[in-house]
Amino acid sequence: MTVVNSILSGDRLALSRLLSQVENRTSEGRSALRELFPHTGKAHLIGVTGAPGTGKSSLVNQLARYYRHPPDGVTPLRVAVIAIDPSSPFTGGAILGDRIRMRDLAGDKDVFIRSMASRGSLGGLATATAALAQVFDAAGFDVILIETVGAGQAEVDIAGLAHTTLVVEAPGLGDEIQAIKAGILEIADLLIINKADRPGVENTERALRGMLELAHPSPRIYKHHGRIMQSQDLPARPEKEGPSWVPTIHRTISTEGVGITEVSKAIAQHKDYLVQSGDWRRRERARLEAELETHVQENLFNRWRIGLADHLYQQTLEDVINRRLSPEEAAEILLAGD
Amino acid sequence: MTVVNSILSGDRLALSRLLSQVENRTSEGRSALRELFPHTGKAHLIGVTGAPGTGKSSLVNQLARYYRHPPDGVTPLRVAVIAIDPSSPFTGGAILGDRIRMRDLAGDKDVFIRSMASRGSLGGLATATAALAQVFDAAGFDVILIETVGAGQAEVDIAGLAHTTLVVEAPGLGDEIQAIKAGILEIADLLIINKADRPGVENTERALRGMLELAHPSPRIYKHHGRIMQSQDLPARPEKEGPSWVPTIHRTISTEGVGITEVSKAIAQHKDYLVQSGDWRRRERARLEAELETHVQENLFNRWRIGLADHLYQQTLEDVINRRLSPEEAAEILLAGD
Repeated sequence: MTVVNSILSGDRLALSRLLSQVENRTSEGRSALRELFPHTGKAHLIGVTGAPGTGKSSLVNQLARYYRHPPDGVTPLRVAVIAIDPSSPFTGGAILGDRIRMRDLAGDKDVFIRSMASRGSLGGLATATAALAQVFDAAGFDVILIETVGAGQAEVDIAGLAHTTLVVEAPGLGDEIQAIKAGILEIADLLIINKADRPGVENTERALRGMLELAHPSPRIYKHHGRIMQSQDLPARPEKEGPSWVPTIHRTISTEGVGITEVSKAIAQHKDYLVQSGDWRRRERARLEAELETHVQENLFNRWRIGLADHLYQQTLEDVINRRLSPEEAAEILLAGD
Repeated sequence: MTVVNSILSGDRLALSRLLSQVENRTSEGRSALRELFPHTGKAHLIGVTGAPGTGKSSLVNQLARYYRHPPDGVTPLRVAVIAIDPSSPFTGGAILGDRIRMRDLAGDKDVFIRSMASRGSLGGLATATAALAQVFDAAGFDVILIETVGAGQAEVDIAGLAHTTLVVEAPGLGDEIQAIKAGILEIADLLIINKADRPGVENTERALRGMLELAHPSPRIYKHHGRIMQSQDLPARPEKEGPSWVPTIHRTISTEGVGITEVSKAIAQHKDYLVQSGDWRRRERARLEAELETHVQENLFNRWRIGLADHLYQQTLEDVINRRLSPEEAAEILLAGD
């Protein structure tokens, strides 16, 4: 049986091997990705991000458990988790191992949890995450939870990949948290105040509502949050037409499972919104176009570099290092012959 | 007087305008960058990064103050600060404004503090930061402090730009901090334990030393930290030859100015190490080569896209969206005619 057939038939060992190959960008991994591509496009990608100490991991765990064991009448879903941990330079691996995370869900063949080391290369993390998500998507996982630590560029990039992004906050995490929240509002579809039994939860919620109010200035949004807003309910937003999603705020205590049902419902409502508004397809299109462009760029550059005499390249680079040419001028000179 | 001459002669208003143009990638900004390039290559770029709540801003402030008002016999330096704040989607600007940060150093014409909104686009932040740093470098600032919030991909990218990277920690910032530290060790030249008057400082230092011990397994490194290590003192490291830098650990209480002199000395030692080991020039070369490559890639892609019939591009993209072609296959088909 080919690797691709093994994946499609649910072979976990083959899946695990392929994920490593894809993460390490081997040629086997690339060729399997191509073959699997026609089987993708069905999974719901859910990003979960937030500052350290907010309890994202346990929230992700609880969501995975909820999807596996929903209330009566709700179909269980197959769940993959991609946990992006800061890597250690000396172990070469992730700090929080797969086994620790899997405790609650061990032995369930419809759950697959994968830790990924964060990479140092520009754009590498989002690209690798996208590739892993494609493998899980093709392998028939309905929900892919992507957990990232922090509030940096990687989180913004991964939010571009996810259909629905949860930003997790917690009361009392220090004085810079306000600034973080403002930056991350841009990518949040759901705002989760986890550890909601801690002191300061009211302040955290008030601050988030204040920021939402500034971003979506309508007196009505607080009555309506959690459902799709119609454009006539809101002041005109210049960037787009049609229904619009206002980020919703939810309190959870993930270590005790409090609030998880409500969050899962809001995630489902956001998915409905995406499909009905056409955003699901628009996001898909933008993402695939970016991927296509990346391949074209790499390909064009590699061809060009192979066709260029190395001594010419090195000599021009020396001119840049010695400040005789700017990098832009050097690029123009090297390209002038083409 | 041209913009470039105004910058070189120390005109702050012209500098401020040019920084905005460069950040917004206007054509004026690009052309000024080209003209300024021959005047760059002298400044010491110092990255300061760490999790929210560690007190990075006040540390940066204190370092700037130290460089402006050093002890007797030490030459004051001209200092620029690039503070990368999470941007707000509704103000379009940075939360912590320039004026708030400048309080301590207001009126000093040899200090220039610039807040930059973090961008949503992949790679955009590091590119924009590099461009701003070039402007400051050409304008004759000796030290450029680059402050970033968080521990994400952007910080790793900016560490690639900086000559010296300070990673700031603080005692008692939550349970995920261990993992963060491990990821960030890779980029740290100096590890700063700020807020060192807080409980838990011993644990924080022990954890950092433990991680350093794993990364640099020599019984001698703790006796020697803070000065250049000779390779014969350390076990062979496969990745490079010659002297090697072991990250040093420093305690500070930046709100009270405690430990700032020691940190500034360690920064100076790291610079000496970079120059003596040849790493300064190697980093410069790698950075300029990456910049050259980016220009070539953009240029090649733009030319290619202009030369391609739009209906062909759109049709191939539709095939990708409908899963008839993978993005990689589509790229190959579109490039086949070239």
